Amino acid sequence: MTLDKNASTSVPIHELMSRRWSPRAFDDKRPVTRAQLAALLEAARWSPSCNGVEPWRFLVWDRTQDAPGFALAFDCLSEGNKRWVKNAPLLILSVASSDPLTGGRPNRFAQYDTGMATMSLCLQAVAIGLISHQMAGFDAEKARAAFGIPTDCTPMAMVAVGCQASPDVLDDETKKKELAPRARKPLAERFFEGSWGKSVQI
Amino acid sequence: MTLDKNASTSVPIHELMSRRWSPRAFDDKRPVTRAQLAALLEAARWSPSCNGVEPWRFLVWDRTQDAPGFALAFDCLSEGNKRWVKNAPLLILSVASSDPLTGGRPNRFAQYDTGMATMSLCLQAVAIGLISHQMAGFDAEKARAAFGIPTDCTPMAMVAVGCQASPDVLDDETKKKELAPRARKPLAERFFEGSWGKSVQI
Repeated sequence: MTLDKNASTSVPIHELMSRRWSPRAFDDKRPVTRAQLAALLEAARWSPSCNGVEPWRFLVWDRTQDAPGFALAFDCLSEGNKRWVKNAPLLILSVASSDPLTGGRPNRFAQYDTGMATMSLCLQAVAIGLISHQMAGFDAEKARAAFGIPTDCTPMAMVAVGCQASPDVLDDETKKKELAPRARKPLAERFFEGSWGKSVQI
Repeated sequence: MTLDKNASTSVPIHELMSRRWSPRAFDDKRPVTRAQLAALLEAARWSPSCNGVEPWRFLVWDRTQDAPGFALAFDCLSEGNKRWVKNAPLLILSVASSDPLTGGRPNRFAQYDTGMATMSLCLQAVAIGLISHQMAGFDAEKARAAFGIPTDCTPMAMVAVGCQASPDVLDDETKKKELAPRARKPLAERFFEGSWGKSVQI
């Protein structure tokens, strides 16, 4: 049995958002098809960006297509993440580029926009029955060196994508994390109305 | 008639992502209900974040509830944006906070995560029949002073939210922008596989 962790919300939200979470239990028998990969990337591609500069880059490693490349990317992960990513068939690195705005002005939205594009990708994963898990736990400079990422680009998150498996595929410590309930701070702590710190009333 | 601009993709993507775009034609007769607002904020709230710190803040101004507050926020917008935001019933400012990670480490993902949360909000808008339009064109320091935004927080985007109207409500120059086709760079320019600059083949 795979694990659901639907968001607990005061009013219903769309199932793409309520069903999305970041599981660690990947099925090592089921790859991500090329058509599924295309859908993930198209969702990211059509995300909005400041001035339409599309400041994101995505770097994909598909274990089925390129096992040595996947191994190099995998090797950039933290030891804790390696314990469960070993079963994932796909890794995707989101990268923020310093492409300038129109007129050559610097773009302060590169990371923000890259986050938006990656969120689209992760929600598209839900839409086609896949799971995704973003990680900050990787060596960005090792990835830069291994894959030739230019200095004006900032590696943001490594995303594991694949099909969900039972939590039983996980080692005990990781399984404990997997089974922990999802939680978020109350709306009142992060969402204000009218002025700073004044909790929204809904 | 309102205007659709579905994304042109090589494979189908979920309609939340394919139908989302950033219209300027808002209906000044239809407010956003409080239940709709709650759904928008809950979608943002359940977005993922590095270490689960939820580094975003959102500041809402609802014209129906608080016309003077809305006017203050509106006054922070660029002149070009004021021309069409004047019909929008809701403004939301997304803000990235420098909340530290566990152990007090600095969080380099604050803006990225805030982008993800804002993207969730914008996709939830599509799900409930609303439109959203994010803007970089506002005076962030003016907003900081007007609403008491702390110095360790970075105002990111102003988001206009409401119901869509016909492009005919717009002035000629804005209408021209509204009717222009949506476009994105080819996948090959932003999406790589195996190593940097090697276009993904799908």
